[in-house]
This record gives sequence, C-alpha cells and structure tokens, in this order.
Amino acid sequence: MHDEQLVLVANQAFYDAFARRDVAAMEALWAQRAPVTCVHPGWQALRGREAVLASWRGILQGPNPPDIGCAAPTAHLLGEAAFVVCTERLPGAELVATNYFVREDGTWKLVHHHASGVARAGEDSDEESGLLH
Amino acid sequence: MHDEQLVLVANQAFYDAFARRDVAAMEALWAQRAPVTCVHPGWQALRGREAVLASWRGILQGPNPPDIGCAAPTAHLLGEAAFVVCTERLPGAELVATNYFVREDGTWKLVHHHASGVARAGEDSDEESGLLH
Repeated sequence: MHDEQLVLVANQAFYDAFARRDVAAMEALWAQRAPVTCVHPGWQALRGREAVLASWRGILQGPNPPDIGCAAPTAHLLGEAAFVVCTERLPGAELVATNYFVREDGTWKLVHHHASGVARAGEDSDEESGLLH
Repeated sequence: MHDEQLVLVANQAFYDAFARRDVAAMEALWAQRAPVTCVHPGWQALRGREAVLASWRGILQGPNPPDIGCAAPTAHLLGEAAFVVCTERLPGAELVATNYFVREDGTWKLVHHHASGVARAGEDSDEESGLLH
C-alpha cells in the first residue's frame, strides 16, 4: 500500500475510534514521541499528550459524544510527515478538519488535529473572508 | 539558526505579509511544488495554489483586510516538514491557527493554513466539546 493510502487508513481509523467512542483506540492513534497538539472546534489549542488525550476522553465518554463521519479526505505527503484535509459530517453540522501525521516506528500517528465549523458552503466567500480573517 | 527558529521566522513573515497587505510577499511564502491547501475561518477547504492565492489576494486587497497579529507561536519539527500552532489577534476577536510548512530549496514554505474562531478562552471546555465535537 502506498504511503498516501496508509495515511488515509490512519485518518479513517481516527474517525472510526471517534464514532465507536473507543478511548483505547484513540489513545493508540496519537504519537508517543512527537509532541502532540489539538484544536477542537471553538477551543484554544491544547498542547501535550496528557492534555490532548484528556480532552478526547472527555469527548468520547461525555454525555453527548457526536455521531461523526469523515468525507472527502485528501492526503498530502511531506516525507516522514503528512496531513489530511477532510470534511467532518455531524447531525446538522459540517466541519472541516486538518489531521497531521508523523511516521513513528513505521506507523502513521496523529500529532495534530484542527477542526472548525463551516459557516457557509462553497468557496466563493471572499467578501466574508475580508471581514472574518 | 536552528530549524525551529527558521520555521518561526517563516511563520512571522506570513503574519507580516498579512499585516502589510503585501500580496507579492504572501505569494512568495507559499510552496511552489508541494500542493497547497487553506482553511480560512468559517470556510470550506481551498485546494491548490491558484485557489489559495486567489483567496489571499481577495483578503489582502478587499475592503476590510483585518489588522492581525500573531501571539504565542510554537513550532513542531517533523523532518522536512513542520507546523506552528499560534493565536491570531484581531480587533475584538481571537483566532487559533495552524500553519504547516515544508522545506523547498532550503527555505521553509507554507503548504497549509487552518484558522478558526475561539468561542471561549481557556482549556476547560470539556462540556462544550461534548456538544460541539
């Protein structure tokens, strides 16, 4: 399997663990050696494995873990690192996510996740962008 | 200068170009060979150099280009790739951004930018996260 496919498999494993609310699988997907960070929608950045995994335990074991699916992922290889840009589909909401991976011991592991809400569909938002960013 | 510092210099150059509304500098900061992507706050992902740079031209030359500053950047080296997590400060708003870089011809270039709004300060948002993500 090509690296690009392996990265997409790792990305899907992340969403599978999320959907199954599988804390052990989620913890195994994150890098052990590389410092990890995470930006949940609307949050400040979390830095460090302890803070990041605590946030995932809170989400997966919380009262309202969301039903989530991943759509339209594209993988971008950068040597021993890679990132995936994808759409996250939740009931009544659509998010966009970037998931960043590094190869540790031959396996692609998450080092960063950044997800955020989509205010409107399409790519014709120049005017809005001028205001928001 | 260490690579980590060089990545932070490239990250600051991005915000300097943004603040100066310098389209030529912005275009030079993005990778030439690696495929580039970009997620502006509230937008879907933009894919490809043409779409990404067109969005930046729209923002920088638009009627309301924001005054922006970068705070608290941290760089994460992953071989020939790297990412920076930082806070973006705008008048009346705070965003969180991840900027991804790749080394091309010895220079760190942007391959992806993902910025999103912060709903509330602090890192104690487990309850909210259970709802949002």
